[in-house]
Amino acid sequence: MNIAIDMMGGDYAPEQAVKGLKLYLSQTDSPAFLFLLGDEQVLQPFLHEAQIPPASYKIIHAPEVIGMHEHPTKALKEKQHSSIAVGFHMLSKGKSDAFISAGNTGAMLVGSIYSIKTMDGILRPTISTVIPRENGKTGLLLDVGANADCKPENLNQFAVLGALYAQHILGIADPKVGLINIGEEEGKGNILAQAAYPLLKSNSQIHFIGNVEGRDVFLDKADVMVCEGFTGNIVLKLAESIYEITQRQNIRNEYFDRFHFEDYGGTPVLGVSKPVIIGHGISHSKAFMNMILLAQKMIETDLMGKMKASFESN
Amino acid sequence: MNIAIDMMGGDYAPEQAVKGLKLYLSQTDSPAFLFLLGDEQVLQPFLHEAQIPPASYKIIHAPEVIGMHEHPTKALKEKQHSSIAVGFHMLSKGKSDAFISAGNTGAMLVGSIYSIKTMDGILRPTISTVIPRENGKTGLLLDVGANADCKPENLNQFAVLGALYAQHILGIADPKVGLINIGEEEGKGNILAQAAYPLLKSNSQIHFIGNVEGRDVFLDKADVMVCEGFTGNIVLKLAESIYEITQRQNIRNEYFDRFHFEDYGGTPVLGVSKPVIIGHGISHSKAFMNMILLAQKMIETDLMGKMKASFESN
Repeated sequence: MNIAIDMMGGDYAPEQAVKGLKLYLSQTDSPAFLFLLGDEQVLQPFLHEAQIPPASYKIIHAPEVIGMHEHPTKALKEKQHSSIAVGFHMLSKGKSDAFISAGNTGAMLVGSIYSIKTMDGILRPTISTVIPRENGKTGLLLDVGANADCKPENLNQFAVLGALYAQHILGIADPKVGLINIGEEEGKGNILAQAAYPLLKSNSQIHFIGNVEGRDVFLDKADVMVCEGFTGNIVLKLAESIYEITQRQNIRNEYFDRFHFEDYGGTPVLGVSKPVIIGHGISHSKAFMNMILLAQKMIETDLMGKMKASFESN
Repeated sequence: MNIAIDMMGGDYAPEQAVKGLKLYLSQTDSPAFLFLLGDEQVLQPFLHEAQIPPASYKIIHAPEVIGMHEHPTKALKEKQHSSIAVGFHMLSKGKSDAFISAGNTGAMLVGSIYSIKTMDGILRPTISTVIPRENGKTGLLLDVGANADCKPENLNQFAVLGALYAQHILGIADPKVGLINIGEEEGKGNILAQAAYPLLKSNSQIHFIGNVEGRDVFLDKADVMVCEGFTGNIVLKLAESIYEITQRQNIRNEYFDRFHFEDYGGTPVLGVSKPVIIGHGISHSKAFMNMILLAQKMIETDLMGKMKASFESN
């Protein structure tokens, strides 16, 4: 198993990425082989300093970097030797089994769609976030920003992808799926939610439990919550800010500490044919470690194969 | 000055409404005269028990009640003697200067639009919520649920209404207006946000500061934040749930205590020609007191006149 990692992506690259590798290697008995993408001259001293065993990785020289604010499509086209472009090239050629980057999110989405393609039958891939719940469990919210405008069928597909992710990665058997909405009863909501409800209700691949409101997001009403990426992104960033507020207010609380989204690593891009994980720009070592662990789990469980089978059977 | 209050609306009516009256009367030197709408037989013992001075109010007998889950339009039509129907009748005839209810929200919105009408030039009225901010100040978010689907011009009008409310009621001079969005730069967001941005930018009646993201909602980036009612309602109910979580987790914190939305009373319906305030179904005495104080302030500052003038000058 090979996992490619963009060592130049994120605000604290490559130092925190290297520290993340070290944490990962210390936590697993059977680590994946790691392709480290970045400027060899820059990377080598960090890897040496951290005493990463040379047998565990190979540096793939990628001297260019796509900045956090560059235009995704333009940058990917012009910077063929960037760590992100090289990562997608390797993934599409089958040289690696997964690709991880905490770099430019837009470039990661564009690369996912154009280099490795969406799965057959999938209209739009999606990104998600885990949601810490008060009962100690973890839920999933999607989409959180890849699709600012959605059609009802998009939400229906997100529900299937999210349910499979919840089942195989989060370990939730028969996950309950809810539609984010502004009322409890069927028929409530905006045009999109009203139209998505009957699709979800008649979808035999999921266990649909109806609408979930803003007040239910942190409760255990649903394991998987679907919405368009506008609302989802607002909810995600609001939840992130709640954590920051608790820190500034010196609140030490086990539940709110789980709002430290960095701990969860990144978000997988669901609906594309191979595992791609996008990290937060501010990812530290623990986030990198968790992203590598997540990539490994996605490969080991053949999540992508299960998702493909699910859409083929439709 | 006369304020009409639905004494039968809300989960704890009429007891908490009566207690709210008492609090209100104890807090003001020059109280408004109060019309109390409800079943006279039911109300009288509560008013007597609470020793509300008889000179301060008059009961308007309204024996019917519109339940929290009744269909708004149907209920308003069929229950002409309900406290909500009577309240709008009095307001539309000029017999009262404001109307307050913690009853059926839908019926309150329908009544606002059809009994007292929207202001000239206003496409859709809106409801808002105050947002406690970490710096001690209070912001305003609108729409929070009256308009699940919006056109760009709706958001532009909400911005003007919200800015006038922030200025005259919240006491914020030259309020900064932000567009709730999923990116910082112009051009980001869903189709609605992309189209609303240039309207807000060229609107000389407001001080537009650009996009605000989910992470900015509780900060002081903008005083007034506009969005469609779907996202706004999710944010409001999520914020309410944060308060409930802090309570369950035994977190005592001055900032999070301000998430106790009941303390703020209700939301005014902005964009209609007279002051209407809708309370939360779970309103207790303090919420009723605050709603009456808010109605009084809206009358005293002639907020509706200022809003009308603003849209006439367009």
